[in-house]
Parts: sequence; C-alpha cells; structure tokens
Amino acid sequence: MTPPGLTGRLREAVGDAGLVTDPGQLGGYLSDWRNAWSGAAAAVVRPGSTDEVAAVVRACGEEGIAVVPQGGNTGLCGGAVPDASGRQVVLSLDRMRRVRAVDPVNQTITVEAGVVLQAVQEAAAAEGCLFPLSLGSEGSCTIGGNLSTNAGGTGVLRYGTMRDLTLGLEVVLPDGRIWNGLRGLRKDNTGYDLKHLFIGAEGTLGVVTAAVLKLFPAVRSRATAWVALGSAQAAVDLFGIVRALCGDRLTGFEIMSRQSVDFVLRHGSGARDLFGAVHPWYVLVELSDTLPDAGLDGLLEAALAQAFERDVAADAVVAAGSAQVAALWGLREGISEAQNFEGPSLKHDVTVPVSSIPGFVERTDRALRAAVPGIRIVTYGHIGDGNLHYNLSRPVDSDDDAFRGRADELSRIVYDSTSSFDGSISAEHGLGQAKRDVIADYKDGYELELMRSIKELFDPRNLMNPGKVLPAR
Amino acid sequence: MTPPGLTGRLREAVGDAGLVTDPGQLGGYLSDWRNAWSGAAAAVVRPGSTDEVAAVVRACGEEGIAVVPQGGNTGLCGGAVPDASGRQVVLSLDRMRRVRAVDPVNQTITVEAGVVLQAVQEAAAAEGCLFPLSLGSEGSCTIGGNLSTNAGGTGVLRYGTMRDLTLGLEVVLPDGRIWNGLRGLRKDNTGYDLKHLFIGAEGTLGVVTAAVLKLFPAVRSRATAWVALGSAQAAVDLFGIVRALCGDRLTGFEIMSRQSVDFVLRHGSGARDLFGAVHPWYVLVELSDTLPDAGLDGLLEAALAQAFERDVAADAVVAAGSAQVAALWGLREGISEAQNFEGPSLKHDVTVPVSSIPGFVERTDRALRAAVPGIRIVTYGHIGDGNLHYNLSRPVDSDDDAFRGRADELSRIVYDSTSSFDGSISAEHGLGQAKRDVIADYKDGYELELMRSIKELFDPRNLMNPGKVLPAR
Repeated sequence: MTPPGLTGRLREAVGDAGLVTDPGQLGGYLSDWRNAWSGAAAAVVRPGSTDEVAAVVRACGEEGIAVVPQGGNTGLCGGAVPDASGRQVVLSLDRMRRVRAVDPVNQTITVEAGVVLQAVQEAAAAEGCLFPLSLGSEGSCTIGGNLSTNAGGTGVLRYGTMRDLTLGLEVVLPDGRIWNGLRGLRKDNTGYDLKHLFIGAEGTLGVVTAAVLKLFPAVRSRATAWVALGSAQAAVDLFGIVRALCGDRLTGFEIMSRQSVDFVLRHGSGARDLFGAVHPWYVLVELSDTLPDAGLDGLLEAALAQAFERDVAADAVVAAGSAQVAALWGLREGISEAQNFEGPSLKHDVTVPVSSIPGFVERTDRALRAAVPGIRIVTYGHIGDGNLHYNLSRPVDSDDDAFRGRADELSRIVYDSTSSFDGSISAEHGLGQAKRDVIADYKDGYELELMRSIKELFDPRNLMNPGKVLPAR
Repeated sequence: MTPPGLTGRLREAVGDAGLVTDPGQLGGYLSDWRNAWSGAAAAVVRPGSTDEVAAVVRACGEEGIAVVPQGGNTGLCGGAVPDASGRQVVLSLDRMRRVRAVDPVNQTITVEAGVVLQAVQEAAAAEGCLFPLSLGSEGSCTIGGNLSTNAGGTGVLRYGTMRDLTLGLEVVLPDGRIWNGLRGLRKDNTGYDLKHLFIGAEGTLGVVTAAVLKLFPAVRSRATAWVALGSAQAAVDLFGIVRALCGDRLTGFEIMSRQSVDFVLRHGSGARDLFGAVHPWYVLVELSDTLPDAGLDGLLEAALAQAFERDVAADAVVAAGSAQVAALWGLREGISEAQNFEGPSLKHDVTVPVSSIPGFVERTDRALRAAVPGIRIVTYGHIGDGNLHYNLSRPVDSDDDAFRGRADELSRIVYDSTSSFDGSISAEHGLGQAKRDVIADYKDGYELELMRSIKELFDPRNLMNPGKVLPAR
C-alpha cells in the first residue's frame, strides 16, 4: 500500500501545481507514447526546480517509495514507465523547461532536463550555432531523456552521441543530494569523470536535472545523394570512399534494404522510386559545410564518380533542390511507419563494427530465412556508425499472432549473430525493461557485476528507477 | 619492510625478463623524466601480457603491497612515480607494445598500453588514417599514460581529448580480475559506461592494459597563419570568426603572450620576429582538410580579411611553405624550454570557458603583478579549448630561491582566479601528487566524496596507486 503520508509530503515538496491528480491527465504519465508499456503509480509529480526534485527524492526515500524519472516519454524500451504495483512515484521533468544560458563564444548551452530537443536546436540556431543531436522524436523528447538514454540518431557519424555532446551535468542522487557538475569546460582533468556514469544510466543512478551541452558552428550548405547498391559490402565500400574524400563534411550515411523502401513506396503518400531498376540496397548520403558556397554537389559527384569507377555504385542521383532532399529523407524516415501496415514489426537496434556489416547481414538474413521462410527483413539504419535497425515482418499471407509468438526466438537469432560479430544488442535505445533480462546473456558477467556494484553504491535501497537496466538476479 | 616472498612471487608472475634488478636501469623507473618527482620501490616489474599484469596485481594484493602503474614516465604531476617508502611495486607497461589490430573500414586501432603515441600515429598513417592525439612528448609517452591522464594537446579543438578518442578498454582491476571492454563500437547503450571511470583516473582504479581507439580520415592539406593581436579579447574574437567560417577545418588555435614569444626569440636558435612592431598577443591558426586541394590558404585569408575589417587583427601572415610552418610551430613549441633560461618556471595548466578568457587574463595578471611587481607572465596555450598554461618567471635581476619560496602563494592567485571564472585547475595534466591536496580547496566537497566512494568500491584496501588524485583526508 501507498504510505498514507506520502501525498502530503509530495505536496509539500512540489506544491499543488506540481502534483497531478486529474485522472484524465494521469494516463499520459503511466504509459509510453506507443502504449507498448504501461503501469500504475502512487503519485505523479512535476517539480518545477532542482530543489523540488531533491525534495521529492528525499520524501520518497524516507517513505521507502521508488522514483521513476520521466522525460518526454518517447523511449522505446519502457525505461520511463512505472511498474504495475502502483507503489512507485513518477517524477516528470516536464516543468523544468528553462534554457538557463547560451554562450555562443564558448559554444555551450545550459538547459534544464525538461527542455524539448527541438527547443534546444532552436535556441542554438537563434545564436548562429548548431546543436546537432537529431532524431525522429525531436519535437517531443526531452534533454533529460536524451541524456539518460545517451541518444543517437542521424548526426552521430560526425557529432557523436549525446554523451559526446555533454560537458557538464546537474544530478539529484538517490539520497536527495544535488551534485552540481554544470561545468562548461572542454578540458578538466581533476579526478573521476562522474557525468559519464549518469549518462546512459536511464535514471537508475539519479535524476538528471540540467546539463551543459556543446554547440557547433551553423551549417550553411548541404548536398544529398541517393545511391543504389548491389550489396551491403558495396555500401560499406561507398562509405569508405566518401569518408576518405569528404572527411568531416560527411554528416549522414543511412542504409536501407529494398524491402524497407518497398514498404514506403507502397504505404507512404507521394513516395516514388528514383530508378528504373530494382536494387537490393540504397544509401542516403549527406554532406554539410559551414561555408555557404562550399561546392558540395560537385564534391559529392566526384565521390560518386570514384564509386562508379570501382563498380561500387549501381546508380545514383544528387538531389536538386530542397523538395527532392525532403523526398529522399522521407523515404528513409517513412520506414518505421510504413512497416506497421504489414503486420507486427519485431524491432531490433544493434551495432557491429562497420567492417563486419556485410558478414553480419549475410549471416543474420540466412538464419532468419531458415527459421521463417518468406520472412520480410526490413534492415535500415546508420551504417556509418555500424548501427542497423533490423526489423522483421511476417511472411505475406501468414498469421500475425503466430509471428508474434516467435518474437523471442527471432530476436535471439538477431542477437546471437550480433554477439558473434562483437556487437551490441542495444545501439541507441537503451535497455529499459525491454532488454533488461536478455542483456545478461550477451554481456560479460564481470561487467554486469561491476555495474551492479555501482548501482548498490549509489542506490543501496534500490529506490531509483528499480527494475530497469540491470537484469534480475 | 618488503615481504620476503614478494620477489619470488613477482618472478613467478612475469619471469626473469619482466623483473628489473639492474641498479643502472632501476633509476629510470623511480623518477619522472624531468626528475621533478622521485621515489623508491620494493621492485620494478615489466609484464609482457595482460595475464602477467593481472598476476602481478594479485601477487601484490596478497602481500598487501601497493602497485604504481607506469607508462612513458612523461607526466608532469608525479602520478606514475612511487612514494619514498620503498614498499611499492612499480608496474611498467613498457613491454606491452603490440598494435593488436588496425581496422581502416571501422576506423579503429586496437593497441596495448605500452605502445608509444607516435607509433599509434604511424600505424594509423600506414593505413591512410589519422590518429589525431598530438603532444610534445609523443615520441616517448604511451597510450596507457595518455588514457590514464586523459591527455589533451593541440588537436583537442577538433578531435577532443583522449577520452573522446576511446571506444573500448581492457583493464586489470585492483582485485586482479580482467575487464574486457575492448569494443570497437560507435554506439552501445547497454548499461553504465565503465570505461570513462578508468580514463583520467591516473591508475588509481586499475591498470589499463589495452584500448580500441578511433581513427579519422587522413589530412591532405593544411594552412597556417600567425596573427598579431592587441588583446586577449581580440584573440577570442578571432577564434569566433575563424570557427564560424571554417567549421571543422579549424584544427589548431594557439595563443601566446608577447612575453612567451620574447623568451623564444631570445633563447630559441633561429627564431625570429615576423612583424616590425611589437604586439601584446599572437595566435597560431591551423586549418586542415581531407581534400588535397582544398583552397585553405584562400579560406584563411578570407577569415583574416574579416578580422581586419572588424579591427580584430593587428597584423597577420599566412605561412608560405613547410619551412615557415615549422618556424611558426617552433615559436609556439619553444616556449617551455626557453623559459627555463630565465630562472625557475612556476607552471599552471588551467581552463576557463572560452568566453571568460579575457576577463580571466586581466584579473589574474593584475593580481600577480600586485603580488610581485615585475613578474614575467608566460601565458600561452590552447585558447580554443579555454586552456592556458599560465607560467610565471621571476622579475629580472631577482632571486631564484626567493621566487621559488612564493610558489604556493602565486599558484593560489592563479587558482583562485580560475575558480572565480568556473574553471578547472588542471586542464590536461591531471592531479597526480602535485595537485592532489590543493584540489580539495577548489572542488565541490560532495563531488570529492563521490570520487572517494568509487575509489573505495574498486580498491577497498587502497593498493592501486595510493596517494595520487584523491586528497589526503
């Protein structure tokens, strides 16, 4: 049962404005945006300041109640959703939306955890700077969630993950104390770097309340190409050619299997095939530059000419104008939605070394087709990072439920193959609840033991987002 | 006293080849290269493999003997030098020099801790890649030391510190167990990121034995300019102009006070002043590109034209040919040595936000001149990272010992000023023994407490490089 004094103590901590009691509003805090995960809660609180976050954590600690930190609720692994007990408190950061400072000279921005990613991009742009993190949910995901899941997306190739973009953090620890590590320094070698423990910890070691993030010079020109390829090996070869020639200008390199593109062509409004022939793979290449007139189209054409010379590319087009650029990105970004029209999607988010991509795709596809003849494999992702979303649809004219029933078996095939190439079974989505237990089969036991000992050090009573990240013993 | 069985156990662990007994060789392991720090040791061992490192750590643990990991011994803070007790064991990684793998497609290199930095640069270059870490001691410092001190240098502006260049680690922990975290993945969100605890920990949490490092496309063209400026504010303004225009091409931005340049002109062989007039500040700007014919000279000239238009630059020259480039870098790199001719050098290595550089220099200079009229302030460093080496020489015709006697007082002035601008008192050199105690006055007490609790978790008996990094209680 919920301790009788809890609500009063929480009201004391956050005031009436910070306590969600309207049943119509509660639901949004108890499920993720896809309704893939849901739970119950003893209370939902929305503190308006770091001190209020600390007060909530202390109050819950004294009552022996667990806290579930929550950002924009767009995660894919259930990391921000409470369990079914109704004894946990959801701590939403959605009222902490202040951009505390922008320093264009130091190229930093200081923001609270509840600021929406797109708002950070816009605040940076208003000062002539770029905040490069970019992902599908950027209109609703928050910086606190981006930090807690070490978010990735399409810009990692050049700018790194959220971890790489972070200089400083402010965190409320499980004992309710506030660590002020909000430093805006590029170099600081004065002991252990604590911020990296909290980044990617999915709220299990504390509540991130604010961060100092890196900014970059604004991009003033872009070029985009769509390339047809005969194999995953050709895609990796193309990556090598473009990267060696264009260096840091290469800011996007996304791969899609023909199956992925087929689904978008079938279900996406206005999507159309660019080439007469059908090709097994496609890549979207993006170059960017800070110079307004950087000759990027010509450079991209030169890279593609090398690719044709070496028989790497089968066909290619450099986008002419922003409408075509949008159409190309639409083909890439429409995959996830289009796949929903074809029955259940079994989603995976894996990385292997870039050099292992061809062997990995070949081995994984073969094993999946042996298990389910006719399975439709929707492979796409950030191949420059070695990161593939290896999503599966049932064979045409087969049964949804029967396919769903084999989900664990098919995921095992993908994960076993990933592991055999020294890969990771979660590239950018985290573990949350979804992969909390399966990770035990793929991660070194000693590493898990070290993770557990850190968890026990910071949160000895297991009250900070329990049941996430760490496998049950 | 040294336990009587220790030598036998160590010989068992590393064999005769791994035990240093020749008194003529021992000295080099007991002092740093500058002879600024020295100690004694119960034994010096040079394991040839990760398993041998683990065996040494276990043997020492069972005998209750502390281990001091050591790389190229080029550190500036005494972090790799044993104490005076003669009861510690120096564990040198200098026999672990294998480049285990280079993967130009994945853009990674896997190296053992004892590989010299320059050898990593060369192994990368042999595959058409760049390993961008670059510092004065690159011919003798080792990757293990670079990792343990999170080394910086001149390439941080574009490529980040050693931490940013590391994808995976192999570490022997204080209990002698081996953590194999040698992953070559750009994205891996499967729990706490342990590698960042060991990077920059100066060997106090374990012995780094190998790492997977990031590579980059080879640079094929460069442009270099030398710019005279009227103030530190002008240098920061110039940084903003060049960075906004040139973006990622900006790979070096080094500042020098006139005093710094004066010392090099006086003592450096062949150094000469480039401009007729004397200017208070100089900046060395370097642009790089992966394209062989990238028009960088023209771009640099365009940036400088903007700087002249806005009255930011006083004078400037773009280097013509490699001899002039070498001469310009010689002016920058000759400072430290030249200063030695002018009496004792009191060295500091601090960072503040780039936007705070002008105020910081003004306030620090004023306080130093008030304390020691005529003091010669040799300010230089990586201003694009906010990192200044704020080194001090005594007034002309004053006494060396009297100046040395005021070292702590003058460092306090520099550190107090750094702290008042939210800076760090160690940007890239670490804490070692040198700053182990003074850090307690400048770092948040709660952060130190968290650091101590992590140290106790990993090394409860305090046998792994004790007396370094963490202040005495």
